[in-house]
Amino acid sequence: MAVSTGLPNGYRTSGSTCGIKGNGRPDLALFISDKPASASGVFTTNRVVGAPVKVSSGRVPAKSIRAVVISSGNANACTGDEGHQAALTMTAQVASELSCKPEQILVCSTGIIGVPLPLNLIAAGIPNAVGTCTASPDSFQDAAAAMMTTDTFPKLMSVDTSTSTGGIRVSGAAKGAAMIAPNMATMLAVIMTDAALTPEQCDAVLRFAVDCSFNCISVDGHTSTSDTVVLLANGASGQPVTDAADEAIVLSAVTDVCEKLATDIIRDAEGAEHFITVDVFGFDTRQTAFQIAREIAESALVKTAIAGNDPNWGRITSAAGYAGVPFDPDHLSLTINGTAVYRTGRPVPFDESVLSQTMQVEDVHLLLELSGGPNAGNQSVRFWTSDLTQEYVRMNSEYST
Amino acid sequence: MAVSTGLPNGYRTSGSTCGIKGNGRPDLALFISDKPASASGVFTTNRVVGAPVKVSSGRVPAKSIRAVVISSGNANACTGDEGHQAALTMTAQVASELSCKPEQILVCSTGIIGVPLPLNLIAAGIPNAVGTCTASPDSFQDAAAAMMTTDTFPKLMSVDTSTSTGGIRVSGAAKGAAMIAPNMATMLAVIMTDAALTPEQCDAVLRFAVDCSFNCISVDGHTSTSDTVVLLANGASGQPVTDAADEAIVLSAVTDVCEKLATDIIRDAEGAEHFITVDVFGFDTRQTAFQIAREIAESALVKTAIAGNDPNWGRITSAAGYAGVPFDPDHLSLTINGTAVYRTGRPVPFDESVLSQTMQVEDVHLLLELSGGPNAGNQSVRFWTSDLTQEYVRMNSEYST
Repeated sequence: MAVSTGLPNGYRTSGSTCGIKGNGRPDLALFISDKPASASGVFTTNRVVGAPVKVSSGRVPAKSIRAVVISSGNANACTGDEGHQAALTMTAQVASELSCKPEQILVCSTGIIGVPLPLNLIAAGIPNAVGTCTASPDSFQDAAAAMMTTDTFPKLMSVDTSTSTGGIRVSGAAKGAAMIAPNMATMLAVIMTDAALTPEQCDAVLRFAVDCSFNCISVDGHTSTSDTVVLLANGASGQPVTDAADEAIVLSAVTDVCEKLATDIIRDAEGAEHFITVDVFGFDTRQTAFQIAREIAESALVKTAIAGNDPNWGRITSAAGYAGVPFDPDHLSLTINGTAVYRTGRPVPFDESVLSQTMQVEDVHLLLELSGGPNAGNQSVRFWTSDLTQEYVRMNSEYST
Repeated sequence: MAVSTGLPNGYRTSGSTCGIKGNGRPDLALFISDKPASASGVFTTNRVVGAPVKVSSGRVPAKSIRAVVISSGNANACTGDEGHQAALTMTAQVASELSCKPEQILVCSTGIIGVPLPLNLIAAGIPNAVGTCTASPDSFQDAAAAMMTTDTFPKLMSVDTSTSTGGIRVSGAAKGAAMIAPNMATMLAVIMTDAALTPEQCDAVLRFAVDCSFNCISVDGHTSTSDTVVLLANGASGQPVTDAADEAIVLSAVTDVCEKLATDIIRDAEGAEHFITVDVFGFDTRQTAFQIAREIAESALVKTAIAGNDPNWGRITSAAGYAGVPFDPDHLSLTINGTAVYRTGRPVPFDESVLSQTMQVEDVHLLLELSGGPNAGNQSVRFWTSDLTQEYVRMNSEYST
């Protein structure tokens, strides 16, 4: 597997400006597959969902998706029947340009909620969005940039790998910088591959990859109304994926792309100064380890401590303690940036100023391990989060409806 | 029922300085019942608990508790076997002064965790703490002040009420200003009444009162290692509580005291500028309404919006949406400070600057109502929280282990 650039075979993309944002920044992203592609999606679990989520989630898994159209700046959420009609119209217009059925188009929108979508602007922009689609790496970059809202950099990733029958590529683009939590927060991602997958394979691969990536990040624990990850597989590489070994190769590449995009979202988290990796080892189930990792990652007290370069083991172990998971605290140990600070239920003497010094870089690593007792085992989870800074509060206090 | 001051009959208290804090502030609180009292306790649900929680939780419900001793400045948590011995020793020393058994004494500690308790200082201070106990309102105030850590004001409350057989009083003192969350966060409370309750009545009354008060507040969602609420009932009023109507009167008074103490904790929340009441109406079970109220109250995006006086209904309704509770969003309505902003699934036009103006005072009221659909009903919950300010982050980034 090798990091690459650009799109897989048979895809064209564009990023253009139709005027939703009002500041002239790109706000319309389009991802086209030249041939009908197998597709799957994973959507927000919020009960309050945007119209595009309702439309797109009803159209996958599918075997003949032609495009994903994304508008940024307005989420088309909480906008009632007109919002639903607007989402349907967006897909119908792209379908008309591509001479296919509306059901072959997926739609996402991100941005402000509760405000009617400026459908006339989008309708006027769609022919240009389709017309400017190309297979070039620059177009891929443009599409990623057109998805952005409060993001400070576009997020995209490509990897090349080989199955038993030949080379394939997996490429993905994502957006998201806050309201990020497991089960899809305000984030959108489109993953494309030229491998040949059935819709069922798409679904299995995507769910596994999302569980290890987008569902293991949290900025603020707030699951949004619009989040969507889509995987398209158009088979343009000409390489069939028929056996389990080849499927595992594709799965690994898709997971790598999703992990890179998910961690890019955390690196771009609003106001963040630290990128925090939380590893939880030694529990009997992945779910148990996941709950503990998530409580640590979402604790305001842990996140403010790390903002202050404070190796505050008490806040971390006590967050593990209230995760609602039974374990024996006398078998719990914690390492911060490689320094043991807590071992089998007791603090370990360490030089606080030296350890604090190691936390003054962007990346901080927490490793929590259970070494015995009734719920110990060999399951682990890696979770990523950002610190909680005064700048995060400033940004989110000043943001207007 | 009338608000009162001072202690119920048969109680004496003191607040004194033994030197744990190092800055000369009071750090030893003592609550004595002259006769053995029925007692019950509710403790943190954290798996990582302080030694005093282990000791005290093993001693209630009980019928002959004589005192509660509280040290502040050091939580005696994560301190291993020595910590456990220290907690036992504190109770033995108070018991020796009162000529009773150690099992008749409850103990709480709050403050820094993982540091050995300075038992010698406490041992030297206990005779003075016992000797200075009086029944005066000033002593009650002193005891409440000696429980404080980062609190900026002492929290105490008394009410007088009458059962069918005569007057009783309920008084309580509490501390806590952060790491506050349902299921007991870093908060301690001692509630005393001169009503005559059995240990079983104590337990039932306390659990009901805590569910409507201390379990309905959250500053930062972090359940701490040390939290304890204790109810003592010594019967010194001479009024037996034998029928359900009298028990309801006591329950109502205890609940009122607990609610006042719990809301005082939120008013004193670290860095807070707003006191937020979240009312959730119209669900089929209290638990469902509770989960939604808690998600709203703990959402960093809701709390930062309110810090900025921003009537951001989208953050509030979407927090309800990810509470993990099924409901039909088309029947959801939201009122902020009495202004309807969202009705049956759609935003309602309102003057944002006028509504924002009403949010510039301390108290903000959110009212979320479900008016139909499969999970509608007549259950409600009131929950209290604080806003998330830059000052909260500053305080908790600079706090040292």
